[in-house]
Amino acid sequence: MGKTNDRPLILVTNDDGFQAKGLKKLVDVASEFGDVVVISSAEPMSGMSHAITIKTPLRAKLVTEQEGITEYLTTGTPVDGVKLAFNTLLDRRPDLLLSGINHGSNSSSSILYSGTMAAAMEGAVNHIPSAGFSLLDFNPDADFGPAGEIVREIIRMILDHGLPDGVCLNVNIPAVSAEDLKGIMYCNQANGYWREEFDLRTDPHGFDYYWLTGYFQNRDTDEEGTDEWALTRNFASVVPVNTDMTAYDALKVLQTRETIKNEE
Amino acid sequence: MGKTNDRPLILVTNDDGFQAKGLKKLVDVASEFGDVVVISSAEPMSGMSHAITIKTPLRAKLVTEQEGITEYLTTGTPVDGVKLAFNTLLDRRPDLLLSGINHGSNSSSSILYSGTMAAAMEGAVNHIPSAGFSLLDFNPDADFGPAGEIVREIIRMILDHGLPDGVCLNVNIPAVSAEDLKGIMYCNQANGYWREEFDLRTDPHGFDYYWLTGYFQNRDTDEEGTDEWALTRNFASVVPVNTDMTAYDALKVLQTRETIKNEE
Repeated sequence: MGKTNDRPLILVTNDDGFQAKGLKKLVDVASEFGDVVVISSAEPMSGMSHAITIKTPLRAKLVTEQEGITEYLTTGTPVDGVKLAFNTLLDRRPDLLLSGINHGSNSSSSILYSGTMAAAMEGAVNHIPSAGFSLLDFNPDADFGPAGEIVREIIRMILDHGLPDGVCLNVNIPAVSAEDLKGIMYCNQANGYWREEFDLRTDPHGFDYYWLTGYFQNRDTDEEGTDEWALTRNFASVVPVNTDMTAYDALKVLQTRETIKNEE
Repeated sequence: MGKTNDRPLILVTNDDGFQAKGLKKLVDVASEFGDVVVISSAEPMSGMSHAITIKTPLRAKLVTEQEGITEYLTTGTPVDGVKLAFNTLLDRRPDLLLSGINHGSNSSSSILYSGTMAAAMEGAVNHIPSAGFSLLDFNPDADFGPAGEIVREIIRMILDHGLPDGVCLNVNIPAVSAEDLKGIMYCNQANGYWREEFDLRTDPHGFDYYWLTGYFQNRDTDEEGTDEWALTRNFASVVPVNTDMTAYDALKVLQTRETIKNEE
């Protein structure tokens, strides 16, 4: 398909580094819909959340420029990459921002730690329709075939209908065959958390150090309508994520406690 | 005041490093209310958001142990520090988690990038009543006196009434005199974003690099009830922040678009 000005411009990023199989799959699917600009990092950036780089300079390098696909590498975090793209690398605003496909789940509260989802949220803060995708398989050689179908369906939905302003999508896809994958379900974020178990070791010099490990704990224990519920039933879960993090119900409660020292 | 078992246990952390004046102020005020355990980092961690350290080991070192105040240093991010404290350093669950006082604002969408607020959110995810505090003054020698009054009032309110589960507070304090400070106002997060201006330079070897710079842009342009609105009127803004990031209004809209491939 020839490059024309009316093809959507799609910014693609991830947090597993430029060599990740999930990124390749996302670029492949995205390029069916528009011109793709990829920004990723040489090093994996998992767990970087919404971190930005303030204390050190950033580098960005053009690595591929071919019909419909341009690729940059950056030394920064996923959010750095999105900011660089918006402000210096792209010659116009993208129509869509896609992040992933992450190797491993970003459902429930895992979204807080996720570089994949932070990139999507950065898009939403900047009014770009954005979605992050994750496959529930940490394996570098995971099969992203069935996930590709879900990505295709979500891109089509966003291009057709748009997304509410300030909201991006957190899409998690179970690691099952295309046959077993039941489709898409819109969900709310399950109430879960990571239960850490720090692995205490002693270095060769006699000093202690810790490795952060842990496993996910679902507090909702299978509450219908949550992303965890959908995923255990072989649906891809789609949670609309708000970049306005105000707890409006709590706000009403707190306002009854209001204390104002002086009247204006 | 002697150490007794029924004094509240208060975990204090920040993202400006252990030498920050704002941290010292927060520890001072917190120790009026309970036994304080501090975990901070040798290096400032501003902009680290909810990042966690997966690829390198963590260190934690006991640096002070005196009546009612115990201090640890960690090599990790603010969220690493909170996790370490909960899981390995504290002998019981804290009654309260306080983060800050940050040097500089974390109002509006700045919360997304903030290590200070990520630490508070990590507390909320773990069911600990938590609040992050920020003074609108980047100066290392800023006057934290008036802010101390606000911190005191918030701690008292939380210890008396608790906080809704899964919700923490984002407290921002204008850099004005005690006389000009109008009190506390509960607010929602203003719709704003950072407008980046990457500073492009060339290194001594002829290669380009960027410094991330920027300024905050308020889209709400002074909408009543937002944190930005309160701050410009010399109120300390208190936004209840939800760790459930589901956009429930958007969820209702999206569910009308639901596509399910197979019936269960």
